[in-house]
Order: sequence, then C-alpha cells, then structure tokens
Amino acid sequence: MNTERRTLASVIRTVPDFPKKGIMFRDITTLLKDPEAFREAVDIFCSRYADQRIDKIVCVESRGFILGAAIALRLNAGFVPIRKKGKLPAATLRQEYALEYGTDVIEIHQDAVSPGERVLMHDDLLATGGTISAACKLVENLGGTIAGLSFLIELNFLKGRAKLGAYDVFSIIQYDAE
Amino acid sequence: MNTERRTLASVIRTVPDFPKKGIMFRDITTLLKDPEAFREAVDIFCSRYADQRIDKIVCVESRGFILGAAIALRLNAGFVPIRKKGKLPAATLRQEYALEYGTDVIEIHQDAVSPGERVLMHDDLLATGGTISAACKLVENLGGTIAGLSFLIELNFLKGRAKLGAYDVFSIIQYDAE
Repeated sequence: MNTERRTLASVIRTVPDFPKKGIMFRDITTLLKDPEAFREAVDIFCSRYADQRIDKIVCVESRGFILGAAIALRLNAGFVPIRKKGKLPAATLRQEYALEYGTDVIEIHQDAVSPGERVLMHDDLLATGGTISAACKLVENLGGTIAGLSFLIELNFLKGRAKLGAYDVFSIIQYDAE
Repeated sequence: MNTERRTLASVIRTVPDFPKKGIMFRDITTLLKDPEAFREAVDIFCSRYADQRIDKIVCVESRGFILGAAIALRLNAGFVPIRKKGKLPAATLRQEYALEYGTDVIEIHQDAVSPGERVLMHDDLLATGGTISAACKLVENLGGTIAGLSFLIELNFLKGRAKLGAYDVFSIIQYDAE
C-alpha cells in the first residue's frame, strides 16, 4: 500500500453497530468532507481509467453518485444513475437481486447507455457484490461494454470479487476483517 | 438567457404524469449523460462561486449529490451529504419539514460543518423550497455561514425563492409554468 492509500484509509470513520448490532460501518463522509482526500480518491480512479476511452460512468444510488460524478467530470464522460425501483421517470430496464433477506430491484433508463459504449461502473462499497452484479447486467442488456468496476472500499471478507470474475475490479481501500 | 443556458435547458427531458398524474417531471438524467452539458452546468456554477472561498458544498440526497460532488471537486471544497432519517451512521442533527401531506426528516452529521465555514448549498431542483430551508437550518445550527443556494432547475411557479429571502439563490434553468 502506498502512502496516498494509507492516508485515504485513515480518513474513513468506523462506526460500530450501524445499521445494526455487530456491523462495523465504514463511513466515507469523513473522507468526502476533506477536500484533499476527496481529490486524491478521484485522482487515483482517474489515473487508472484515463486511457480507457470511458464513455459513461454508471453509478449506484446514492453514495455511489458522489465520487462517480466527480470521476465523470474529470474523465469527460457522461454520468448515468442506477436507482431503486420507481425513481427514474422514463422507460427503464429492471433487475432483481438477492438481499440477505428477500430481494430488491434496481433500474436504469433504457436510453442511458448506447450499444458499444465503454462503461465504468462505480459504487462506494464492494460487499457481497449483489448490487453491482445486477447493475452490470443492466448495462450489458443495453449493449454497453463494461471496462471496469471501481469502488472506494472493498470488504475482502465478504468475497464479492469472486462473484465478479468476468470483470476488471478495482478498489482503493480494502478491509480484511469486520 | 444566454446560448449556454438555452443549450442546457434543451437537454432536460420532460416526462408527463410522473410521479403522478398532472405533474410534468423535469428529468435531468438526459443532461447528466451528456458530457458537454454536464461540464457546462458545472462550469456555470463554479464560475459563479469561484471567488467566494467556499469550504463545503452541502448537498441534498440523492440527485443533489451528483452536480454537487462535481462542483466540490472543481472548487476544491469538501462534500457534505444531507440524507433522509437513519442513513447517516454517526451523531447527527435532525430537522423536520413539511411535505404536501405530512412531514419528513433530514439529517446532517454534527461534525460535517465547522463554525465559521463558508457553505454552498446545492440541490438539483428548487420547488417549494421546503427541503432546502430545512437543510439551511441544519447548516446554520452547526455554525456554518451560507454563501449561497444553487440549483440546476427552479420551478418559478411554486415560488420557493420567496421562502428563501435571506439567502443568495441561483438557478441555471427556470420554468415559469407546469
């Protein structure tokens, strides 16, 4: 790990027992409110993808919107939101995915990605990988080519990366244990 | 209206009867997915606030996160989210505000803004002004100084601006009628 990444990890706040007992919640708001840390994170993502001719950044609601929008601006790419069911106003594609208990549904606008466009996926956190897998299906169903999956944080012990073997997965900060 | 602003208005999509019958929904996703339009919007905001020594951009969940994060990056300011009740993990301040029917609650982290910091508020849309008024109270209760309120879209006919007389209010695109 280089110095830059150590610095970024040090501005993540860990909140015990949120949203429920036993969960160590990794709070990115302490990084986002720090202009230097925020810019460093964006710089790391952008240096990785700068040469990959990214057309669109597809971001998962809602924390994924934050760094995703900054990356889109810097890479001169379009920004595309993936949202929970019923939030997007025009014609959508929907994808169901499994939660710990039950299922949830995310949507993308049908005209958000054009066939052949190169797409960088972004979310703040890679946990079990369920949401981002569903998001990738949506983009591929629109004909997009997924250039990579990018996360600020990866929870290694949840093994989400194993579910995403078909893709290039990148994260800046990793946690090996809860 | 200058040419740049006409161009931005032309990439907003209007979706009739969303989220319910009779509402003309102004959909910003068609602007966000267009890299030039996205950058133009950010440029307009940043040229307005570049000389105002903005420390933090405080943004309302979740569409407000998108342009707000891009503005924060460009102005070298910190990004602060205001979220619905129960989403922020650490100690918060809460503010209730009126909806058409009933009330809702938004929150900010208590350590998100320090006393004396200069804050730019951002949301995608100014409608009746209820949410942004509540958001301003939160920032002021933390001791922040509100330098301005910024919106991509303003629905003039809902007269939100009249409720915000104490502040400098700026919007890029205005609609005079539903």
